[in-house]
Amino acid sequence: MEEVNLGLYFLSEFVGTGMLVLLGCGVVANVALTKTKGFSGGFLMVNWGWGLAVFAGVLASAYSGALINPAVGIGLFIAGDITLVMFLVSMAAQFSGAIVGAVFVWVAYRQHFDEEEDPANKLGVFSTGPQIRSYGHNLLTEIIATFVLVFIIFAFADYGDINVGVPGGLGPLTALPVALLVVSIGASLGGPTGYAINPARDLGPRIAHAILPIKGKGSSDWSYSWVPVVGPMIGGSLAAFAAPVLLGFGA
Amino acid sequence: MEEVNLGLYFLSEFVGTGMLVLLGCGVVANVALTKTKGFSGGFLMVNWGWGLAVFAGVLASAYSGALINPAVGIGLFIAGDITLVMFLVSMAAQFSGAIVGAVFVWVAYRQHFDEEEDPANKLGVFSTGPQIRSYGHNLLTEIIATFVLVFIIFAFADYGDINVGVPGGLGPLTALPVALLVVSIGASLGGPTGYAINPARDLGPRIAHAILPIKGKGSSDWSYSWVPVVGPMIGGSLAAFAAPVLLGFGA
Amino acid sequence: MEEVNLGLYFLSEFVGTGMLVLLGCGVVANVALTKTKGFSGGFLMVNWGWGLAVFAGVLASAYSGALINPAVGIGLFIAGDITLVMFLVSMAAQFSGAIVGAVFVWVAYRQHFDEEEDPANKLGVFSTGPQIRSYGHNLLTEIIATFVLVFIIFAFADYGDINVGVPGGLGPLTALPVALLVVSIGASLGGPTGYAINPARDLGPRIAHAILPIKGKGSSDWSYSWVPVVGPMIGGSLAAFAAPVLLGFGA
Amino acid sequence: MEEVNLGLYFLSEFVGTGMLVLLGCGVVANVALTKTKGFSGGFLMVNWGWGLAVFAGVLASAYSGALINPAVGIGLFIAGDITLVMFLVSMAAQFSGAIVGAVFVWVAYRQHFDEEEDPANKLGVFSTGPQIRSYGHNLLTEIIATFVLVFIIFAFADYGDINVGVPGGLGPLTALPVALLVVSIGASLGGPTGYAINPARDLGPRIAHAILPIKGKGSSDWSYSWVPVVGPMIGGSLAAFAAPVLLGFGA
Repeated sequence: MEEVNLGLYFLSEFVGTGMLVLLGCGVVANVALTKTKGFSGGFLMVNWGWGLAVFAGVLASAYSGALINPAVGIGLFIAGDITLVMFLVSMAAQFSGAIVGAVFVWVAYRQHFDEEEDPANKLGVFSTGPQIRSYGHNLLTEIIATFVLVFIIFAFADYGDINVGVPGGLGPLTALPVALLVVSIGASLGGPTGYAINPARDLGPRIAHAILPIKGKGSSDWSYSWVPVVGPMIGGSLAAFAAPVLLGFGA
Repeated sequence: MEEVNLGLYFLSEFVGTGMLVLLGCGVVANVALTKTKGFSGGFLMVNWGWGLAVFAGVLASAYSGALINPAVGIGLFIAGDITLVMFLVSMAAQFSGAIVGAVFVWVAYRQHFDEEEDPANKLGVFSTGPQIRSYGHNLLTEIIATFVLVFIIFAFADYGDINVGVPGGLGPLTALPVALLVVSIGASLGGPTGYAINPARDLGPRIAHAILPIKGKGSSDWSYSWVPVVGPMIGGSLAAFAAPVLLGFGA
Repeated sequence: MEEVNLGLYFLSEFVGTGMLVLLGCGVVANVALTKTKGFSGGFLMVNWGWGLAVFAGVLASAYSGALINPAVGIGLFIAGDITLVMFLVSMAAQFSGAIVGAVFVWVAYRQHFDEEEDPANKLGVFSTGPQIRSYGHNLLTEIIATFVLVFIIFAFADYGDINVGVPGGLGPLTALPVALLVVSIGASLGGPTGYAINPARDLGPRIAHAILPIKGKGSSDWSYSWVPVVGPMIGGSLAAFAAPVLLGFGA
Repeated sequence: MEEVNLGLYFLSEFVGTGMLVLLGCGVVANVALTKTKGFSGGFLMVNWGWGLAVFAGVLASAYSGALINPAVGIGLFIAGDITLVMFLVSMAAQFSGAIVGAVFVWVAYRQHFDEEEDPANKLGVFSTGPQIRSYGHNLLTEIIATFVLVFIIFAFADYGDINVGVPGGLGPLTALPVALLVVSIGASLGGPTGYAINPARDLGPRIAHAILPIKGKGSSDWSYSWVPVVGPMIGGSLAAFAAPVLLGFGA
């Protein structure tokens, strides 16, 4: 493993995750908040929006290999692709980047937040929430969806000889498959919980929601907040254990 | 033909087809079941969902060349690209993988199955059914749609010098064309029967539907179940005979 | 220019255009005819359907370089990329392929044609028609839309050093750009006339409509039929004259 | 830097931006104007339409490296990738190309402009306007959205060793990422102002709107016209300063 500049590593994850959240939470704002041009644009628009947000986030985060997701990070750490220090630094960067990205969503859609009447719609721009609340079921759904994400990343990283844990290991060519994968997961497994599949993407914006002086905001729903953190971390970990066995490259 | 490890071959087809069905049936669950975030998301969302499910399934199934469909398998067997043993092993893997994938769809959408009132919507998540029932017409539609799938796979496999029947023959670069092809077939030829175009994708989940303790489930519609098995096998076979003639590379 | 086998050249254009029309007219059947699964799926679904139909058609037509459109053919002939004989042979193949493709659409959607009440919807599956009839304006719109198609094909063929007129000159890598281009033209310039942009795609199916024993069919609207033939031929020709000047590679 | 032929450079930017505006404003015409086939096609259709308009525009503008946007131009000028003369020539070409492109949109949709009753819909085809008017907020949104565009272009240009400021530096391979990026920005940040993110794309068509004898047209809304010019220029400039710092390649 070549020498990693931890400052640049932090910066790269910070910028990539910020971009991811700005564009990802942005599409929810566009579809959910009152009087926008994309109001009621449909779930497929949300799926493309989040998928392409990942596309941009990966492109912005080339130095660090674009984890931009602690669930990917824990998977790579378990697989031995990154060190504990890299994992911890990347996580710190991802959470802080996600908070900053969410702040910019609020700035860009400020007037639409101000005119929106429903506090639940405002929170929904920042963080996911379940359609039918049940911590056990919701957790299971997030585990399955994140397992798919990290497992398939292992699949094409391995097949394409991409060393995802090494700086410069990911580039524009992998941005597209990951983006399409996220469109897929959203369309197919996002129905019950809104597919956090990334603790930073969910908790970071939730913190921003709690801090920002959003007009007429309601609760940040902290009682649910652990589900989209714990579920993805479990799913990403399971994928790291399963990948070498199920993909046949550990044989 | 290099030596094939039949255990890994089975595993690869099992995992790929499981992923295909998890994501493919998942998008139908999201669009069809009550109270999901993607409810009534439209047929184009279903088309993208299934197309990208193929994308993920192919990526997860690199070792075996990602047939993940007995209709593709029979085509390759007729063309002499895989042996009878490989064909039979792959089929066994595909059907069992599809059953497991469907079980996980039920787990991920458990609450929405429980609250769904219409048994037909529940079955629709697992298996296809015709809009206007008529075994002859429905069979014809499935034959045509599957012919297109396998024929075009032959076209770009041949053109790109991709040996689809050899382990490692398919990789990430072919995942995208096949995915787009499936989006196309769904949008264009999926109107009458819901485009099974894959016996494992239809019969596997139908078996899961019959076995699983789904609350308030109805009939598994066994009387129709042979159509999305026989139709695709005929379509795939015809494509294998037609490809060398119509694509001009048999000359 | 290497020796062209005119029989294979014909076959390649025949198969490619047949595939194009089967999938292209298929998506209109799915969106327009009664009781299909894609009924009222929206214009964006039609755009993707036609774009990906081109994707499949190009893949099926590698030997001949996948013109699959007389408007592309006349452009290449004017540019000196194909001979008069190749142009004439390709046109004959394209029109006959388009007729056969349309027949298969009717077979696949037979029951939905039978139950459809509106004869205009039936014709609309086969051929384009204007939203506001006015031969002059409609012709102008088809000229502009086809100009864009052929001009951009020249742009990336030239830039990518692709010899579109030579057998084998086009392959899977160009199928995607052309497909996206057709999605674009449909979404952006398809509003007034339904973007024939291909005389074979319009006249071939119109002939099929006239010949086939479609239950309750109405007029084949022959009075409009020349517009989607003449317009695209003019647009493709203009593009061939304009490309070397406007793209700067004739300097 | 190799010798640039300023005449060809102008031509290339003129043609690329004309193509961009023809297809981009075209999709708005299709969705917004009365009696078109794409009427009320949804915001996702507009996003794909504009994204693929960029795809075509980039392909048509290979000689000059396809800036086709003064906000990209100012970014490259600040970064030292193009000279002041190139920047000024490209801007002149972009504005004149945009005007011509908008004229062709009007020609293609002439009848639908004539039958459209609402003057605001007519202007909306040409230029952007805010959902909730407030120059300060609207400006901020345009700055953020354009920052994302130019910043990510720097990210993948740098990573892919693409010299965006040199003739021939951009080609078909970069057309797709930029297109997807514009789909993303539209879906995610286009809600409040309609994402001009390009002064030429907004001011050029506005001038065309003012000049053309459009039946029943209303005001060209000059009071807002500076926002989609100044905002993108600020956003593009900020991206040029931020990119070397935040992407870590200036270290």
